[in-house]
Amino acid sequence: MVLTMELGDKGYDIVVERGALRELARYMDTGRRALIVTDDGVPAALAGVVSAQFPRGTVVTVGMGEGAKSFPVFQMLCEKLLELHFTKSDVVVALGGGVIGDLAGFAAASFMRGIGFVNLPTTTLSQIDSSIGGKVAINLGGVKNCVGAFYQPELVVVDADTLSTLPERHRRNGLVEAVKAGLIGDSGLFGLFESEDPARCLDEIILRSLAVKKAIVEQDEREQGLRRLLNLGHTVGHGLEGVYGLDGGGALLHGEAVAVGLLPMIDGKELRERTAAALRRLGVNPAFPYDADRVYEVMTFDKKNRGGTISIVRVREPGEAYLKEIPVEELRGYLQ
Amino acid sequence: MVLTMELGDKGYDIVVERGALRELARYMDTGRRALIVTDDGVPAALAGVVSAQFPRGTVVTVGMGEGAKSFPVFQMLCEKLLELHFTKSDVVVALGGGVIGDLAGFAAASFMRGIGFVNLPTTTLSQIDSSIGGKVAINLGGVKNCVGAFYQPELVVVDADTLSTLPERHRRNGLVEAVKAGLIGDSGLFGLFESEDPARCLDEIILRSLAVKKAIVEQDEREQGLRRLLNLGHTVGHGLEGVYGLDGGGALLHGEAVAVGLLPMIDGKELRERTAAALRRLGVNPAFPYDADRVYEVMTFDKKNRGGTISIVRVREPGEAYLKEIPVEELRGYLQ
Repeated sequence: MVLTMELGDKGYDIVVERGALRELARYMDTGRRALIVTDDGVPAALAGVVSAQFPRGTVVTVGMGEGAKSFPVFQMLCEKLLELHFTKSDVVVALGGGVIGDLAGFAAASFMRGIGFVNLPTTTLSQIDSSIGGKVAINLGGVKNCVGAFYQPELVVVDADTLSTLPERHRRNGLVEAVKAGLIGDSGLFGLFESEDPARCLDEIILRSLAVKKAIVEQDEREQGLRRLLNLGHTVGHGLEGVYGLDGGGALLHGEAVAVGLLPMIDGKELRERTAAALRRLGVNPAFPYDADRVYEVMTFDKKNRGGTISIVRVREPGEAYLKEIPVEELRGYLQ
Repeated sequence: MVLTMELGDKGYDIVVERGALRELARYMDTGRRALIVTDDGVPAALAGVVSAQFPRGTVVTVGMGEGAKSFPVFQMLCEKLLELHFTKSDVVVALGGGVIGDLAGFAAASFMRGIGFVNLPTTTLSQIDSSIGGKVAINLGGVKNCVGAFYQPELVVVDADTLSTLPERHRRNGLVEAVKAGLIGDSGLFGLFESEDPARCLDEIILRSLAVKKAIVEQDEREQGLRRLLNLGHTVGHGLEGVYGLDGGGALLHGEAVAVGLLPMIDGKELRERTAAALRRLGVNPAFPYDADRVYEVMTFDKKNRGGTISIVRVREPGEAYLKEIPVEELRGYLQ
């Protein structure tokens, strides 16, 4: 199935099809020069299948994890593109999870002020959420996505066959973004996590999550308003990641942090308990114990901070999220 | 006088008025946090006048010259913005020439995927050309503007009073871009350089040059087609700068390199001689001797290169420029 992101002259196709990574030439010009950016967590066999389809391709493999979203690695990619004489008609291909998409996408966005970019997400997290929408970035000083751009890919290929080799913890981690998508805009999707086995309806979960995100991004590409809904759970989540994530020993993956951050944003005890139950059912612990003072400190650096107030996302009912502006200090009350 | 760049929700005002830098609060909110980026070539008195208008301002002064458009300085600015807890509603203020606008603009474009950016150009080159249009970048590996973005400022203030302290060579250097603007789209502007003393009609030259550029940028913000006309003289010019400019001992300033690059792009011997005479009259030497092989080598790295062909800009009559696609190798024939 092909979803089309409608963004005027920046629109693009999102191919959602098992096996699609084996036949990329059906969806794009694979004859161009291509810089295939991947990490050492992506199975070598998969990287081989993809790179074999680009006769003029060069593979760059970076270390797995958030550490790759750094200034030195970003600069290294730009230098590589320069060394290979890339022009605007060539393409950067991201093969990996959200880290690789963000990093490679920022290099594609910035090199010569923007060259071709194709995103081939290989994790549940990136297939469900981060690969579409055009937010690309690197981290700085422990702050996630501190330096980046809005830059839309020219194609996204979501091939759920890649998920079979993903460690179970990472598979669950990404599904938290689908629970989030359900809470924001699709009560039926949320219901799947209450009544079905997510592993058995993975294709439907991915498609419905992408549809929720697509509809929002189409209305607000550059996060002037509505798109902030997608940050549900992320205000607290990014704070937790700052302390327990990339720089804190990796106790929490991104989705696990978002899971913890979702609960305080839900109106009404009943839905809060239903959400906690759905997350536990998924195998994610929404009650991770944390140091609220440290998390609060990191949260106030967060990019969603606007002067003295901050915009948070709350949920009234599954499928009904809304924005609320609160003084930054009130955030402290949202932490355990 | 205020020109308005019409770019939908990215539009902005270009204030062209002597003395305007002394009363910035008339044109923008000066109460926000501001990072004022300048260089040590800007008179301290001027930097003082500007920074005094921002009660929450912080001044960062970098070394003068193209060397500041580098990865380390770009990263330093991002770190400074992070350290000062800048948010999207705060502003980066560029006070200087094209180098400062490009550098500070790229930091503003990238920090949190884009915060406020105000450009206060202080040289003829930046007042006439580089401060409007939203191209921001840093250099890499000797290639100018290799890494950057399209990012529009929220305000540009062109105050010709700042030019009185500019060294004569730099003043003339910038005026080459006005000769270029005349050749592209305003024969009357070109005529001023043939019949008038440029120093005595500087305000008119600045205004007419900005009008030419504004009209083109409004039709093609991201350089998909028409905007390439503004590159007249820059294909050869960038090649010359690569060899004799930023890394080559500084024998040529940007405008001086463009002056040399203009001539081979002009149809007909008569107009070529008129243009050479206008440039000499301005005090710029269009016959700078150079090593054509080395310049050709640098030119083939140029970002305007598209696969096997390159788009060059030619001039039929003053005010009538056109694009022409030629094989890259043919460029060699354009060099002396």
